[in-house]
Amino acid sequence: MAPDPSNRTGWATAIASIEHGRTLVRGYSIDELMGRVPFGDAIYLLLTGDLPSPSIARVVSAMLTGWMDQGATSPPALAARYAAGSGAALSGSVAAGLISLGPGDHAGALTCRALLEEGLERAGSSMLLASAAADMVEDLVQSERIPPPGFGLTSTSPDPRVSQLLQMALELEVDALYTQFLRAIEHALSRHPALTDEVLPINVDGAAAAVCGDLGLPPSVAEALLVISRVPGLVAHALEEQDRHPPRRVIDPTASRYDGPAERRVGRR
Amino acid sequence: MAPDPSNRTGWATAIASIEHGRTLVRGYSIDELMGRVPFGDAIYLLLTGDLPSPSIARVVSAMLTGWMDQGATSPPALAARYAAGSGAALSGSVAAGLISLGPGDHAGALTCRALLEEGLERAGSSMLLASAAADMVEDLVQSERIPPPGFGLTSTSPDPRVSQLLQMALELEVDALYTQFLRAIEHALSRHPALTDEVLPINVDGAAAAVCGDLGLPPSVAEALLVISRVPGLVAHALEEQDRHPPRRVIDPTASRYDGPAERRVGRR
Amino acid sequence: MAPDPSNRTGWATAIASIEHGRTLVRGYSIDELMGRVPFGDAIYLLLTGDLPSPSIARVVSAMLTGWMDQGATSPPALAARYAAGSGAALSGSVAAGLISLGPGDHAGALTCRALLEEGLERAGSSMLLASAAADMVEDLVQSERIPPPGFGLTSTSPDPRVSQLLQMALELEVDALYTQFLRAIEHALSRHPALTDEVLPINVDGAAAAVCGDLGLPPSVAEALLVISRVPGLVAHALEEQDRHPPRRVIDPTASRYDGPAERRVGRR
Amino acid sequence: MAPDPSNRTGWATAIASIEHGRTLVRGYSIDELMGRVPFGDAIYLLLTGDLPSPSIARVVSAMLTGWMDQGATSPPALAARYAAGSGAALSGSVAAGLISLGPGDHAGALTCRALLEEGLERAGSSMLLASAAADMVEDLVQSERIPPPGFGLTSTSPDPRVSQLLQMALELEVDALYTQFLRAIEHALSRHPALTDEVLPINVDGAAAAVCGDLGLPPSVAEALLVISRVPGLVAHALEEQDRHPPRRVIDPTASRYDGPAERRVGRR
Repeated sequence: MAPDPSNRTGWATAIASIEHGRTLVRGYSIDELMGRVPFGDAIYLLLTGDLPSPSIARVVSAMLTGWMDQGATSPPALAARYAAGSGAALSGSVAAGLISLGPGDHAGALTCRALLEEGLERAGSSMLLASAAADMVEDLVQSERIPPPGFGLTSTSPDPRVSQLLQMALELEVDALYTQFLRAIEHALSRHPALTDEVLPINVDGAAAAVCGDLGLPPSVAEALLVISRVPGLVAHALEEQDRHPPRRVIDPTASRYDGPAERRVGRR
Repeated sequence: MAPDPSNRTGWATAIASIEHGRTLVRGYSIDELMGRVPFGDAIYLLLTGDLPSPSIARVVSAMLTGWMDQGATSPPALAARYAAGSGAALSGSVAAGLISLGPGDHAGALTCRALLEEGLERAGSSMLLASAAADMVEDLVQSERIPPPGFGLTSTSPDPRVSQLLQMALELEVDALYTQFLRAIEHALSRHPALTDEVLPINVDGAAAAVCGDLGLPPSVAEALLVISRVPGLVAHALEEQDRHPPRRVIDPTASRYDGPAERRVGRR
Repeated sequence: MAPDPSNRTGWATAIASIEHGRTLVRGYSIDELMGRVPFGDAIYLLLTGDLPSPSIARVVSAMLTGWMDQGATSPPALAARYAAGSGAALSGSVAAGLISLGPGDHAGALTCRALLEEGLERAGSSMLLASAAADMVEDLVQSERIPPPGFGLTSTSPDPRVSQLLQMALELEVDALYTQFLRAIEHALSRHPALTDEVLPINVDGAAAAVCGDLGLPPSVAEALLVISRVPGLVAHALEEQDRHPPRRVIDPTASRYDGPAERRVGRR
Repeated sequence: MAPDPSNRTGWATAIASIEHGRTLVRGYSIDELMGRVPFGDAIYLLLTGDLPSPSIARVVSAMLTGWMDQGATSPPALAARYAAGSGAALSGSVAAGLISLGPGDHAGALTCRALLEEGLERAGSSMLLASAAADMVEDLVQSERIPPPGFGLTSTSPDPRVSQLLQMALELEVDALYTQFLRAIEHALSRHPALTDEVLPINVDGAAAAVCGDLGLPPSVAEALLVISRVPGLVAHALEEQDRHPPRRVIDPTASRYDGPAERRVGRR
């Protein structure tokens, strides 16, 4: 029976109950979750209300991990560093970074999601994805929305996270219409006569949008995963700013250099 | 060789390098991490610079999961709900919650950590933990610091997360001096003649403090784990506020009721 | 000559210059401002680039003062109180309140401003405000946007700030087309046959929108004045929470009571 | 009769009452304040509970104005700019700036205040300020707290706000023991044999600390004035970032240049 928030006094929450010192999250005792459920699965549970299947769990964990750092000189990392350098508490520094995450950081994924939904609705039951994609690309060219959300790279090199995520979705058999339509658009972009000089591969926003769509996650939950994924990076930058740099320093974002470990492989785990 | 931030121009960061569209986090290619490393392990890598051993990974994931929600009416959840209800962006709502997390939420764990370090230093190489603990409890009673940080419950019932975490640390053989000293203090508290009417079990702050100490995590990294662990809960409350409640409503924190799934078990995974 | 941010290296700011320990704000030495310019005028200078005329100064100061508190149980005040009660720094507590100010708090004024501009554009050079207002009200009724932004009260009693602000604008001769059109809409609302049962007076959002329009302030500067005006109230609530209430208390927004001074008059100044 | 928050149910607030659409702030009808009380005076009323005398009003307004901008490349301004450039709402951008204001920005004033109070307490009723100041400077030299909080400049030139504020306090006869003791310390610093090579004039933190002390403002209210004073500058930087610069740009804090109005005088008002 669906919850009815109005049939009793008070206001309803379906997230957690705390009674006699014991917390149930979405019905699961949190101490049982502690031993048995990885953090990524617990996040999925909190956001969606249910534990993920093993396949979905792997894809969600891959997204959380893959989005977790944008480098020391992304605007949110710099805002967190300025706050940390001025003596703010760690949680406050992360807050400054989150505010600066702003709509801009998710906009690509969210508008790509909307684009995919619009195209899939137009394609309808016929499921002629190729022709729906060609129509959509024609519209995008006409309305000068090139590059479209979810396509095009900031760097000249491909972003390896895209192929990694799409490959995982394929192997774990969680890819479906959204991903197929995303690929159909990529193909149509590469064939459009007005775009022969452009290189418009699927980017990380596009891959996230399609995979979240195929996982059945509402756009708000997809956005929530992106927000959560960025927090550990913001925390790391705030801590490093406190540990390694003088307070209230001037931060030249063009003058950072990496002095961490050289490239290494994960190895057998 | 330790990094020297001053021997070249620019400023140093050891967190991530981004070159030609490819991100290395602490030396690991982020797309390789995506397939193979759970999110909790990736967080540990970001914060400490290295991947955890399997035992440490399980304990860290258990802490991240165990701390992830304090209920719909904790001050941070309410601040996030007020921001979300006023129309703030999701990341802004989480920021309001994080600011309200405040020093208070970690203070128990951080001051308990300091207490344990002070006691262990006093015990010195003799490692007479029992007598060091008795001395410390005597001091605490004299200076009227009862309950001490890390001991005493807000509820009358034991918090099952405490035994779960300490049991995991024991089985995975990551418990050591900090945890032993924590237990020694608990024992000394139960034996002190001035405290016969008090029930002062180890609480969740105490367990976190000792386990993080035994894992060799600096206090700042322990605090970072606590901050990160709380974010998914804040996100869930902000989303639920937007989804289920009218904008800018009056929130009576004494009138919430849980209408989510009934208690259930994790089952075989 | 208009500034050209691109014709030299570096990036341009027209707000302040600091040289040899001396700060010029918009060209004025800040120490000269200190003695001679009230804070409200200095705010206007910062936001618009010039000092206000005496009439404009009085109206701007009246708006800053009139908007400065929405009570102890408005969502932003509660968010600031939760943050302060959890031990956050004063500036962090105000930040939590500001985040919770959200778009909702200014939306009335900003959408009313857009409505007025749309109507004034339609009225064009003929300046037949009455008939333009009647057309606009008809549109609003047809599109079910009743109450329109800027009209209608949350309480049954009139808000005395509205008549005070409009009266000041009249006496100081800074009212003009926006205010006249606002009044024309109010009149048209009172005469529309479908609205005979409604009481839709100009509210505080409407008065602010029209007066800022007549002052020639861009919408972004009008929003800025609203944001600034709310800060002292948020600060006061955060301080009071710290001074008068226990940390991390449960705040029932329906159970506050006022125990400050009884009503008094400003008297001769 | 002093308010007693516990003798009735509910929780007490002395800031504002809102009844029948009418807001009383500290007992004054807000619409009456709007016409008659400058914004700076209204801020003082909100924070302290009473309207200021004309002399106090002028000094408070001078402090609010004098502290209102620290330039486009101070850490808080940069944090606000990063948030604004990422598309955050205006109030969110200001929040990011406020978080980055951090304890560091007030610390000088607050620790100088504590220093003055400690010294005045030691001087006691004898009021031998010169010898109390000499003792304090000796202590500061011994404990290597040079420069002491409230003394010493970041630039080689004197900060004209210091003499302006102290001169105003003198002329308006609101200077008293705190200011006298501040000057006595400055004198003692200039005479100490170990400091002959140092130039340690009163800085802006010291002047603010002493004047707020002489005005009888508690340290928390002095901090509140500093927080409020900084908000208009943060707002101006956030707006300018949105208006004049591309989104998500890299901000080199060493490469800003001022292109606003040339130096000008306030003139007769």
